[in-house]
Amino acid sequence: MRITSPVMARNDDIAAENRRAFRLNGLLAFNIISSPGAGKTTLLEALAGELGPEMAVIEGDVKTRRDADRIVRAGCRAVQIETGGSCHLDAAAVKEAFSALDKRKPFKYLAIENVGNLICPSAYDLGEHIKVGMLSLPEGDDKVLKYPSLFSRIDVLLLTKTDLLPHMEFDMDRVERECRSLNPGVKTFRISARTGQGMADLCSFMRSRWESL
Amino acid sequence: MRITSPVMARNDDIAAENRRAFRLNGLLAFNIISSPGAGKTTLLEALAGELGPEMAVIEGDVKTRRDADRIVRAGCRAVQIETGGSCHLDAAAVKEAFSALDKRKPFKYLAIENVGNLICPSAYDLGEHIKVGMLSLPEGDDKVLKYPSLFSRIDVLLLTKTDLLPHMEFDMDRVERECRSLNPGVKTFRISARTGQGMADLCSFMRSRWESL
Repeated sequence: MRITSPVMARNDDIAAENRRAFRLNGLLAFNIISSPGAGKTTLLEALAGELGPEMAVIEGDVKTRRDADRIVRAGCRAVQIETGGSCHLDAAAVKEAFSALDKRKPFKYLAIENVGNLICPSAYDLGEHIKVGMLSLPEGDDKVLKYPSLFSRIDVLLLTKTDLLPHMEFDMDRVERECRSLNPGVKTFRISARTGQGMADLCSFMRSRWESL
Repeated sequence: MRITSPVMARNDDIAAENRRAFRLNGLLAFNIISSPGAGKTTLLEALAGELGPEMAVIEGDVKTRRDADRIVRAGCRAVQIETGGSCHLDAAAVKEAFSALDKRKPFKYLAIENVGNLICPSAYDLGEHIKVGMLSLPEGDDKVLKYPSLFSRIDVLLLTKTDLLPHMEFDMDRVERECRSLNPGVKTFRISARTGQGMADLCSFMRSRWESL
């Protein structure tokens, strides 16, 4: 779908407001984009185990409040956005959700879980500091060049479900190489939220990015 | 994203033209919708092995011609649509691709592989006879109620990558039950293109639907 430019200009204005609000609250914000089922919520549950109440989460879904409930059970504040059909979050929805987050106790990290979709969310700035693209091994190692609008824009590439590598063919080097060919500065991590592989490195990265805010 | 109704009315008109053209050519057309990496192309390769030149394929991707090349190597005619950013196929793109398919030797089945996306393609009639929704086990068994616009509209639900069941938690009964709760008439199959599980049943279903055209 073509996006008309007045819509995008309005989105960019609100995203800039969000970015200022996040900074005033001392928050590092990251926008996580992947296909449905790549493991966004599972990753956030694992991060909640590491970061606890230092992190808050805005959850985007077309329908249901299941993901916010999972995050709250894992120990973090969470607000759910139900888009009711829309295939991506926009800055206005994030602004509204952020205003609804309980800020009485301070936190450092704001995770925004976008709607499961490898295409439409990539075009919308939400005001985040870090755009994270996630690709799970079962999706196949041919996806970077098929979905260049996302993979050329991300700051961080997470390869997830690495515990499944013995059960499928997937060339992690190829994916990272193709992503760097679009996007030389991308930072990459190989993660299994199930086994914990790579989680410590990811948390260190986030802490150091927060320190340099 | 909201779809304005003149766009949808125009799409529906062209979809009706497509449906007439498919019927005049004696074709059963199916529109396959899933997340990226759920196994659409791999399923079509496996179907190509069963149906050979009886099937032709229209491949939709945002970018690259890789999938059409895979289908041709598997023994079927294929035409690639590169949407160049659009997150779904529409009837006009399918009409153009269909006109480019070689029809000198007759065929029976027209597979349309939609862009990998669980949201936007669900709203667009392409003129198909059968709308197929595919969900791979690694995506998780919570997806039906999170993406109701697709799962309430499909004629056939394919659960794919069933060979991975020993390596993950996935309740196939739950998914089929939730899909039937939205969509009582849905027909379901459990498939592994890798091991061949379920492929014979799916082919029988397609042959019988072709017979009753």
